[in-house]
Amino acid sequence: MTSRRVFFLTPGVAAATLKALPKRREDLPTPALIVEVDKLEANLAKMANHLKAAGLAFRPHAKTHKTHEIAKMCQKAGAVGSCGAKLSEAAALAEGGATGLLVTTAVIGRDKIAQGIALAKKRPETIFCVDQAQNASDWDAAARAAGLRVNLAIDLWVGRRTGIECGAPALELARHMSRLKNVRLQGLQAYSGPSSHRRGFEARTAASREAMGEAVETRKLLERDGIACPWLSGGSTGTWNIDPGIDGITELQPGSFLFMDIDYRRIGSREGEEFNDFQQALFVICTVVSRPKPDLAIFDGGYKAFAADRGYGPELRGRRDVKVGFAGDEHGSLAASGAKAGDRLEFVVPHCDPTVNLYDHMYAVRGDEVLAAWPISARGKSQ
Amino acid sequence: MTSRRVFFLTPGVAAATLKALPKRREDLPTPALIVEVDKLEANLAKMANHLKAAGLAFRPHAKTHKTHEIAKMCQKAGAVGSCGAKLSEAAALAEGGATGLLVTTAVIGRDKIAQGIALAKKRPETIFCVDQAQNASDWDAAARAAGLRVNLAIDLWVGRRTGIECGAPALELARHMSRLKNVRLQGLQAYSGPSSHRRGFEARTAASREAMGEAVETRKLLERDGIACPWLSGGSTGTWNIDPGIDGITELQPGSFLFMDIDYRRIGSREGEEFNDFQQALFVICTVVSRPKPDLAIFDGGYKAFAADRGYGPELRGRRDVKVGFAGDEHGSLAASGAKAGDRLEFVVPHCDPTVNLYDHMYAVRGDEVLAAWPISARGKSQ
Repeated sequence: MTSRRVFFLTPGVAAATLKALPKRREDLPTPALIVEVDKLEANLAKMANHLKAAGLAFRPHAKTHKTHEIAKMCQKAGAVGSCGAKLSEAAALAEGGATGLLVTTAVIGRDKIAQGIALAKKRPETIFCVDQAQNASDWDAAARAAGLRVNLAIDLWVGRRTGIECGAPALELARHMSRLKNVRLQGLQAYSGPSSHRRGFEARTAASREAMGEAVETRKLLERDGIACPWLSGGSTGTWNIDPGIDGITELQPGSFLFMDIDYRRIGSREGEEFNDFQQALFVICTVVSRPKPDLAIFDGGYKAFAADRGYGPELRGRRDVKVGFAGDEHGSLAASGAKAGDRLEFVVPHCDPTVNLYDHMYAVRGDEVLAAWPISARGKSQ
Repeated sequence: MTSRRVFFLTPGVAAATLKALPKRREDLPTPALIVEVDKLEANLAKMANHLKAAGLAFRPHAKTHKTHEIAKMCQKAGAVGSCGAKLSEAAALAEGGATGLLVTTAVIGRDKIAQGIALAKKRPETIFCVDQAQNASDWDAAARAAGLRVNLAIDLWVGRRTGIECGAPALELARHMSRLKNVRLQGLQAYSGPSSHRRGFEARTAASREAMGEAVETRKLLERDGIACPWLSGGSTGTWNIDPGIDGITELQPGSFLFMDIDYRRIGSREGEEFNDFQQALFVICTVVSRPKPDLAIFDGGYKAFAADRGYGPELRGRRDVKVGFAGDEHGSLAASGAKAGDRLEFVVPHCDPTVNLYDHMYAVRGDEVLAAWPISARGKSQ
């Protein structure tokens, strides 16, 4: 056991969830989700240093990793905290020790707002997004009843996901919120999904400048109205080297850069046709379990091992020439004449976020050594 | 609390995994996976009675539900046991009290065979599929070391998933196995995926007769060779009223009939263009969380709430005219002018098996009453 292992492993948690941690990569039961820690750390350092140099705050989106150990690694690297897509995701990260949480989807309904109040009591710095007046009023009433002041941000619609329209509608909501005593308007959030995955660096730059430009204008509109708005959070892995050039954005919330996947690689970079700004750090190890025909091998990973929302299957690591496909819920197929039952294969995943959500643990490896099994503590926390 | 509730709920398990079980459907935190118990029971009774009348054994495939409570319900309805796609799935069901398990994918590797031996010790009736001689020999050696005789079945390739080719290759494997002292050849398994989802009843009938015909011929080949082969398990929901007419099949292993989904509905039935032989029993309740534009509502279920392997999104229950799509990992979009934040919507899922695998619990409901939260005890058990 090396000192690195002690650093990463939270013994109580791992002991409670795994009977025995295999020590070697080759002993991991497949399908196994692994992250190569050297690459994870390099990706994290690159993004953190880049944003520090640009003068932007860094709040990585935990929807990608759902793992409190990684949220805490990010904070050690300089992140102000983590984003959670849903309240239950943020609560699970807080339970594991993460702080500085931003809940990026509006928390709707009496029961969930009550749970949000519980999180705000535990972590008073938490910020919750809202995009309509009634929800802001509901938060205010719940906060008043609890004797709290809760941090809210206005979620702006800039072409994907959620939010209120920029400009006059957002201003009207901000004015409404400024009259509420038990909420504090932290600023604005704007996530431009269509920009983050736009193929080609020039097209992506233009898309993000247009979408985030609207958010920046809305920020100015509020400030001209006398409403303090010191904070505008947005961005993604795809716009990591675009958004820092847009004056008025104060914080970036990228997620996929930690792991990377086929989907992101395809968007292209400033330098070339592929986006290799960050290293591929996440893989799934599978085992060949059947060989029905000479040119067909079946391995033990299907729709339950790789999220299939991209319309294509995983890629054999380092062998893009090999045809790989899904063969059902539990199986994948490989057109490889050399494969035989028992062979272990490593795959690059089509889309990292929903794939990570399929696993209970992520094995942190360095070379052949398994350092830890990190609990994916917010797995399934979509509520 | 009604007597039904006591019947379904396993209090210790539910208490350990849920802080408080909401009593009403409208109080379930969304996204919530629900099963309407009346429909589940009707689907189960229809299939069980049909197979009993046809003289076939019934071993439903638990890859669909992954829930030991449902495996036990099936046994009460007359099933001889349950199939598990992987060893860890079967082990989780056994842990919850299910018996009569058939592991439908070959168990490969020393560590997994050791776990298989542990399952065989606990449940000696368990059957494990093999499709190559080395794996059968490995089982034999492990069983001998443990002082056991383990039940194996030969998995036949009939056009999808896994298995050895029918005819001479299967016979050769059976001869090899008949020389091994610590394994018992139970019979044959043949799953014809291309038949189960073939659109149109006539085309599906022809496909299943051809594929399963090969398996039946292989069974005869073994018996002519003096190798007892009393058992041939196969079939699916799509061939439930086709395979009982194929002489030589002794057991059916359907799964999706319990829940149904859009994917299966599309295959067509003997009676018409849609397959409605079983009732839609599984739904996901979501909540509208944002309304960015007058004609666009965003709800809280995306790729992490609905498996997206079919290439299409969920369907608003009873409103097929409404356009529904994915809006990312955590969100869906609805072109509904009337929807507002806080509205609860119920959806039919594109594909039931991998969708169930996304949830920790399945809420069993009858009308507005929540009877139980069944732990999806084999969720994530793909190993």
